[in-house]
Amino acid sequence: MATAVLKLHCEDTKGIVYHVAKFIFEHGGNILESQQHQEPLNNRFFMRVHFDLADLNCTRQQLRSDWEPVSQKFNMETDLTFSDDRKRIAIMVSKYDHCLYDLFLRHQYGELNADIALVVSNHPDLESVSFNFKVPYFYIPVTKANKQEAEQKAVELFRQHQVDLIALARYMQILTPTLLEAYPNRIINVHHGFLPAFVGAKPYHQAYEKGVKMIGATSHYATEELDMGPIIEQETIRVTHAHDPKDMVRLGRDIEKKVFAHAVKQHLEDRIIVYKNRTIIFD
Amino acid sequence: MATAVLKLHCEDTKGIVYHVAKFIFEHGGNILESQQHQEPLNNRFFMRVHFDLADLNCTRQQLRSDWEPVSQKFNMETDLTFSDDRKRIAIMVSKYDHCLYDLFLRHQYGELNADIALVVSNHPDLESVSFNFKVPYFYIPVTKANKQEAEQKAVELFRQHQVDLIALARYMQILTPTLLEAYPNRIINVHHGFLPAFVGAKPYHQAYEKGVKMIGATSHYATEELDMGPIIEQETIRVTHAHDPKDMVRLGRDIEKKVFAHAVKQHLEDRIIVYKNRTIIFD
Amino acid sequence: MATAVLKLHCEDTKGIVYHVAKFIFEHGGNILESQQHQEPLNNRFFMRVHFDLADLNCTRQQLRSDWEPVSQKFNMETDLTFSDDRKRIAIMVSKYDHCLYDLFLRHQYGELNADIALVVSNHPDLESVSFNFKVPYFYIPVTKANKQEAEQKAVELFRQHQVDLIALARYMQILTPTLLEAYPNRIINVHHGFLPAFVGAKPYHQAYEKGVKMIGATSHYATEELDMGPIIEQETIRVTHAHDPKDMVRLGRDIEKKVFAHAVKQHLEDRIIVYKNRTIIFD
Amino acid sequence: MATAVLKLHCEDTKGIVYHVAKFIFEHGGNILESQQHQEPLNNRFFMRVHFDLADLNCTRQQLRSDWEPVSQKFNMETDLTFSDDRKRIAIMVSKYDHCLYDLFLRHQYGELNADIALVVSNHPDLESVSFNFKVPYFYIPVTKANKQEAEQKAVELFRQHQVDLIALARYMQILTPTLLEAYPNRIINVHHGFLPAFVGAKPYHQAYEKGVKMIGATSHYATEELDMGPIIEQETIRVTHAHDPKDMVRLGRDIEKKVFAHAVKQHLEDRIIVYKNRTIIFD
Repeated sequence: MATAVLKLHCEDTKGIVYHVAKFIFEHGGNILESQQHQEPLNNRFFMRVHFDLADLNCTRQQLRSDWEPVSQKFNMETDLTFSDDRKRIAIMVSKYDHCLYDLFLRHQYGELNADIALVVSNHPDLESVSFNFKVPYFYIPVTKANKQEAEQKAVELFRQHQVDLIALARYMQILTPTLLEAYPNRIINVHHGFLPAFVGAKPYHQAYEKGVKMIGATSHYATEELDMGPIIEQETIRVTHAHDPKDMVRLGRDIEKKVFAHAVKQHLEDRIIVYKNRTIIFD
Repeated sequence: MATAVLKLHCEDTKGIVYHVAKFIFEHGGNILESQQHQEPLNNRFFMRVHFDLADLNCTRQQLRSDWEPVSQKFNMETDLTFSDDRKRIAIMVSKYDHCLYDLFLRHQYGELNADIALVVSNHPDLESVSFNFKVPYFYIPVTKANKQEAEQKAVELFRQHQVDLIALARYMQILTPTLLEAYPNRIINVHHGFLPAFVGAKPYHQAYEKGVKMIGATSHYATEELDMGPIIEQETIRVTHAHDPKDMVRLGRDIEKKVFAHAVKQHLEDRIIVYKNRTIIFD
Repeated sequence: MATAVLKLHCEDTKGIVYHVAKFIFEHGGNILESQQHQEPLNNRFFMRVHFDLADLNCTRQQLRSDWEPVSQKFNMETDLTFSDDRKRIAIMVSKYDHCLYDLFLRHQYGELNADIALVVSNHPDLESVSFNFKVPYFYIPVTKANKQEAEQKAVELFRQHQVDLIALARYMQILTPTLLEAYPNRIINVHHGFLPAFVGAKPYHQAYEKGVKMIGATSHYATEELDMGPIIEQETIRVTHAHDPKDMVRLGRDIEKKVFAHAVKQHLEDRIIVYKNRTIIFD
Repeated sequence: MATAVLKLHCEDTKGIVYHVAKFIFEHGGNILESQQHQEPLNNRFFMRVHFDLADLNCTRQQLRSDWEPVSQKFNMETDLTFSDDRKRIAIMVSKYDHCLYDLFLRHQYGELNADIALVVSNHPDLESVSFNFKVPYFYIPVTKANKQEAEQKAVELFRQHQVDLIALARYMQILTPTLLEAYPNRIINVHHGFLPAFVGAKPYHQAYEKGVKMIGATSHYATEELDMGPIIEQETIRVTHAHDPKDMVRLGRDIEKKVFAHAVKQHLEDRIIVYKNRTIIFD
């Protein structure tokens, strides 16, 4: 059963919900979920509507073009997607395999409405894992010297494979604009720290030194400023004085997987709107 | 600023959201929040709309009567309330004061959109607490012999004080139909156990005997079957072998307060619909 | 570096800690961790000591025989194990693979001080998973008619493979005394419900019907009474009216893996003492 | 029943546990709890022993002096306290009352083994709360000009009232060395943010701006560097895009109370050792 998701945001004013509901009703859609959010500070209105297409009384193309005048009337930024246009994921990974396995398995359980198109890695180590899940694996070595070239090669692969989302499953390289600008708000990273604390390298060691009593993990859209992109999901876990950085690495794996998979799932279900470096998430 | 909440449920069919949005739009309302839920199993549709009345173009009475045909068209059960009709709470309590203090303080912080009209207790102990928060306190002793009479007296007090909601803040008496039938789905109880496990007396002792590793608390609407009414909120907390029942009582206080206050708040904000002994909660 | 764990329990009296510390000191051991617990109700004392063997001034056999008089003096039940006697795990599984993958991966990350000796299943489905992790897989079909025989065959395999612990990774068969009595307090099960609520089949459906706001998972030692053995670990996760049983199955996987792996790890590190159907866990 | 707590730390070496157990045994003490911790990095050993004094075979003074040679042998830093030397707490507060109420109530429930000696505030607002709980309240106004003098006055009051611990229950003034140096590691603060993120003023506004998905609270010993003292306890709570700073203030109250009360309780039970700006907490 095909469904559609309409995401929009615009200046807040009266009648938006009505006009959206009217538009969907008149085109034979049946609303399954409808969520909205106001930000008085920015006088901004956000909305996501999930509707059934079973009785759609026009073509999808017609639906899109009929939507234009409504969108323009309210000066909206909108995004309309169809559930049977399955999204395609590229996973980038280095040597840690826990987030990779987690995505593969959740995909296998049917938790992710998407195809995993390919895996790209700067190391050859995880090729056999990828092989077991029948996903092509591309080893693109990265050095200081060839970084631009390597990213360019990755972007080409992503284009060939018609990739919609790039999931950085503990990919241990800082990205450059080559890749970032090709997929704005479509690259999801997982950071093994509770951002904005402990940015950058070795966050668990930083956490240990500071003596915190909880550690965290954060998934966010990758942007040019390292670990500072819009946060999608966070999770924390209790630690004590008895946990050294090695223990934190072990405990951290469980929450890294969780926040990462959750962020990827929310993105795939078109639940996220990014506005002014924050995320509005309709879950 | 006055707002309204419309709650409804009916057989699921197409166009409900549209007709509700249209109704509100045409009467000058501005939708602030809109949530819905489908239960395919029961083919039932549930909805809550919160809308602003600032530009309402008719009287509230007119709004109510104009709503009738829409409601009938879809054979809905509906509930329409206005935020400036502040609800009035009666608290029933015995000797434990933690849930009582918690409601008093949250009320003082402006967390509850309601007035605390009175406190009724089967013990005189907590009169001074009530006095400090300037709420009248009625001591109605309860014995096996006078229970009916005592409840009848309470119901009369509640009617005099125009009570909308009865909050059982660890009231250690099993209620009879006299009270239950006077306020269906408007009496909220807190049980110091993770229902449906550990029904009835001494749930923490039961939990200790069983050796569970988490204990819980549950708030629910009171019904005739003890501790079996529709669940509103639950919370758990980790325990170990080292916690005896006395420790559980101590730890339990924190989660009892939390689930109780949360349930009361959700009810006061008209976020709860009860259907077939389950709650649909739009939060 | 080899270490030892001494677990004991006995009637509570003065001087136990001193005599244990003295025994270890005099034999050249260095205490790394020492934990204890009193149960006034049962007048029972429990203790676990983890000590370093680097400077042990006698053979391990001598250590064991020298311990005997101390143990007898206090009428203790004791258990002395050495970290380099790596335990051997048998995993039993049916068709769900999430707990199986989780154990394989944690083993690979070095989280479990044990070897996974074999997998036994009543279905052939997960052989390839086992193969990828280089663990032998035995398919033993189970029917009503051959259940005893099948369990007997499993027990023989476990003996051949010198198995210490049996991990039921969502093994969907009720065990009989044939297996249970062969490995008392050494069979760990994971139940997809918050015991003692929702015993038996389809706990998520039971939870949905009841309308609970949290679901849980429980790991416990298997005993003859179904789902009633000593609880080792529990975890809960929040659900709403919007989660149907299928969603609960999905959400449940994450907590099932977590409680199961935690229980297995605690057992392997000799942290658990079972007493009167409850567990004392020194973590 | 009087008990004692011995806390110690020293360079790690063999035989410490044995010598401590021997010392207690020979003086007629009965060990109730014994915990230890090693930090290989610093080669440091930490220990806390809680023992019963019922059968002590000497005076407490004798116990103290007999302990000296053991302490010196291992070059320990030690702290020996007796449960019937009830500690005395001073609470400092400004205008928010939630942490104040929480301490008063927990004291009333017997959760804190201490007396609340006095409340000191830079505002007169909460005097009636203090009055209701029968605790003397001292209003000491603080301005930029009189800050030193005001703190000096507070220190004098604390000395007169023989105060052991100062609990800053949302006291909205930055302390100076006058107070800090008079009570090193005996002033506990609660910060409404997840340290080390969001130091200083308006942490909830900072959290909102950043778009975090969890907010936190932290209790720590106050030191000269603002919000940078040794962390005792932390807690987080989930937020969404829909929570503005005002909502975070409301949600934050619950976790502020919790981390603050927990920290105070751990301190009062002599469970905390501070070492190199981190806390070792034996709970």
